[in-house]
Amino acid sequence: MRETWVVGAASNRFGKMAESGREAAATVALRAIESAGLEPRDIGMTFVSNAFGIAERQAHLGPLLNTALGIPEVPSATIESACSSSSAALHEAYVHVAGGFLDAALVVGVEKLSHLDTLTATSYFAIGADYPFEARNGATFPGLYATIASAYRQKYGTRPEELGAVAVKNHANGARNPHAHFQKEITMDMYLRSPVIASPLRLFDCCPFSDGAAAIVVAARERRPSPVGEPLVIRASVRTGSIADMHDRPGLTGLPASRLAAERAFRQAGLSPKEIQFLEVHDCFTIAEIAALEDLGFYPPGTAGRATREGETQRDGRLPVNPSGGLKAKGHPVSATGASQVVEIFEQFNGLAGGRQVPHAEVALAHNVGATGGSCSVHIFGRR
Amino acid sequence: MRETWVVGAASNRFGKMAESGREAAATVALRAIESAGLEPRDIGMTFVSNAFGIAERQAHLGPLLNTALGIPEVPSATIESACSSSSAALHEAYVHVAGGFLDAALVVGVEKLSHLDTLTATSYFAIGADYPFEARNGATFPGLYATIASAYRQKYGTRPEELGAVAVKNHANGARNPHAHFQKEITMDMYLRSPVIASPLRLFDCCPFSDGAAAIVVAARERRPSPVGEPLVIRASVRTGSIADMHDRPGLTGLPASRLAAERAFRQAGLSPKEIQFLEVHDCFTIAEIAALEDLGFYPPGTAGRATREGETQRDGRLPVNPSGGLKAKGHPVSATGASQVVEIFEQFNGLAGGRQVPHAEVALAHNVGATGGSCSVHIFGRR
Repeated sequence: MRETWVVGAASNRFGKMAESGREAAATVALRAIESAGLEPRDIGMTFVSNAFGIAERQAHLGPLLNTALGIPEVPSATIESACSSSSAALHEAYVHVAGGFLDAALVVGVEKLSHLDTLTATSYFAIGADYPFEARNGATFPGLYATIASAYRQKYGTRPEELGAVAVKNHANGARNPHAHFQKEITMDMYLRSPVIASPLRLFDCCPFSDGAAAIVVAARERRPSPVGEPLVIRASVRTGSIADMHDRPGLTGLPASRLAAERAFRQAGLSPKEIQFLEVHDCFTIAEIAALEDLGFYPPGTAGRATREGETQRDGRLPVNPSGGLKAKGHPVSATGASQVVEIFEQFNGLAGGRQVPHAEVALAHNVGATGGSCSVHIFGRR
Repeated sequence: MRETWVVGAASNRFGKMAESGREAAATVALRAIESAGLEPRDIGMTFVSNAFGIAERQAHLGPLLNTALGIPEVPSATIESACSSSSAALHEAYVHVAGGFLDAALVVGVEKLSHLDTLTATSYFAIGADYPFEARNGATFPGLYATIASAYRQKYGTRPEELGAVAVKNHANGARNPHAHFQKEITMDMYLRSPVIASPLRLFDCCPFSDGAAAIVVAARERRPSPVGEPLVIRASVRTGSIADMHDRPGLTGLPASRLAAERAFRQAGLSPKEIQFLEVHDCFTIAEIAALEDLGFYPPGTAGRATREGETQRDGRLPVNPSGGLKAKGHPVSATGASQVVEIFEQFNGLAGGRQVPHAEVALAHNVGATGGSCSVHIFGRR
C-alpha cells in the first residue's frame, strides 16, 4: 500500500443551483484540481457520484465530465451507495491509488433535484430505502429516523432539548460556512416551536433537500510530494454494510454499520477515538448525530445528547462535531455529501475555515451513512 | 499486483423475468459463489450494477443483496457506466483483489425493465446518452448507432448482407445458448425483409430490451488455489473513455475508446490480437460488432463486414465472435451485459457451452461499451 493523500478539494454553495449538475460538477472538479496544483491531464480516473441523475435524465456522467475537463480518454465510473455515494467513490479512488493502479484520481459528487416538485423529489429520495418493504408502505427517511429517535428516547429518556442542541450547534456552524445551504443561526426556542415532521422529529431535526457539488483529488505521496496546501493523509478508508432494513435488526438505537466501520478504521489507522480532534458525521437528522457519536466510540450509549447540550461538540468544545454545519445546516445534496465532509476537513487543516475554524488538529474523522445504515464509510485523515 | 482470477460465474435466462431484480441478483450471486466452491462469507465486497434501478424504484441494491446472501456486514457499491456497468464493476473488483485489499469479491449485474411500458423503458435507456444534446432532441440509441452505420457505409460501401451476416450468426449462436433471450435462428432473407428501425438499421440489427442477471466471483490466486472449475486468469483489465458525444468526435466509423482500450489491454497482457482465440464483443447493433472487430485490431478498417459474411467469425470459423449470441440474440439487460460476457467465457473454458462450444482456447477477450463509446472496458482472460 502506498501512502495516499487528499491533495485538493472544492465545493460550491449548497442550496439551489441555477446550473445543471454536469456544469456544477465540472466547475468544482476544476477548482479541486487547481487547489492541488495539478492539471486535468494528471488525473488517471474519475469517480463520480450522482445517485439521482434520473432527476436530470442523465446517467453515465463521467464521460461528460471528463470531456468538459479536456480529458475525454480518461476512464470513469459512477459510484452509488445512497447517501454515502461519494465516500464510497473516495474509497474506490483510495484503493486505485494506494494499490498503485493510478497516481491521481478525481472524486466528484453532485446532485440536483430542486427543479422537481417536492413529491417527485421525495419519491426519488425514497429509492434509497427498501422499496417493497419500506417506501411502498409509506416509510420515507423522516419516518425511519423518527423510529430510531423514538426507540432511543424510550431506552435513554432523551429530552427534546438534546436533539435541539444538535440543530442549534450545527446551524451556528453553518452560519459561518459560505458553502452552507442554511447560513442562519437558530435558537432553542425556535427549535422547540418548529412543527413536528415525524414524531418526535421536528422541522429543525431534519436536513434539507439541497443541490450541490463537491470534489476531491486523491494522489499518491510518491507522485505528488509538494501539494499547494496541506494534504490530508488517508490513515483509514473503511466501508461496511449492515442488515438493510431496520425492522430486521436486533436494535434500533444506533447503526451496526457505523460501529463496525469505526472499529475497523481505528484499527487501520492505529488510533483510538481519544486521538481524534474533530469530526464530520452523518447528521441527516439530529438523532443520527447523537447515535453516530456513540456508534463511533466517542460517547457511551445514551450520553451523547447530554454532552451535546453541555456544549462539548461545539466549535470551541472538547470535540468539535460538524464544524461545517453538517448535513443539517450545510445541506444534503445526497451524492455530494461524503465528498463535502472531506472538503471541510481539507479547509480546516489548511486554515481556510474562517469563522468556523477549529483549533489546530492533527487527526480528523469523516463518517457517512447510506440510507438507514445499510452502508457506512469511515475515513480518518492525518497531517503529512 | 497479485494474479487475479474469475473463479465462478452464473447467469439466468435473459428475456422477461417474473421475479424482481433483487431476487434475480441474489439467485445468480449464490449460483456464482457455489460454482467457485465458495460460500457467501468468503466474499469481501460486492460490486453491483443496476443502472436502471429506478425502474423498480430501488437504489442502494448492495445491502439488500448482501442481506439476502446472509453477509449483511460486507460493504457494497453500485457501479454505473451505462451499458458497460458490470464490466466497470469487474474492473473495480479486479483492482481491489489484485491490489491486495480483498481476497474475493462478487460482481453482480442486473436489470429489469420489462414491466414498464415501452416509452418509459426507452426514456430510461436514453439517460445513458447526453440528455441536453442527444436524448432531448430525439436521438436515442438506434438513431445514434444508425448514424455510425451510415457513416461506415458511406466510407466503405458496406452491403446490407454484411450487417445481416452479424445478425444471422449471432442468432444461430443464441439458438444454442440456454441463457439467451432469443433462442431462434434467423435467415438472411428474414433479415433483409425485417422493418427498418433507423435507416440503415433494421429490426434484426438491434439488440432487444431484456431483463437479466449475471454474476461472477473474482479471487486472488494465493487465496483460492483450487477452484471447482477452470478459473479465468485476468490477464488485462482496462477501462477508457472518449469524447462523450459522437457529434464532437473526429470520425464516426468506430469508437476511439475501444481502440485505446484494446491497445492498452494487449500491452497489459503482453499479447497481440493474433493470440486471441475467441471474443465476446459489444454488438448492441450489428454495426457495433463490425466496428469493434476493427477497433480492437482484429480486422483492418472496412473489412470486418466482408469477413463476417464469409463466415470467419462463426463458431467454427477462424475467430469465433459472440458465441453466446451477443447482445443481439442473448439479449441486453444493460447492467448484466458485461458480467454475462465473462459468464460465457467461463462456460466456454469449462466445456459447459453445449451446442455453442468453440474449440479449445487459451485466451479470450471481452469488450463492453458504455452508450456510444463514452466508456469502454476490455478484459483479456487466459487459462491457469
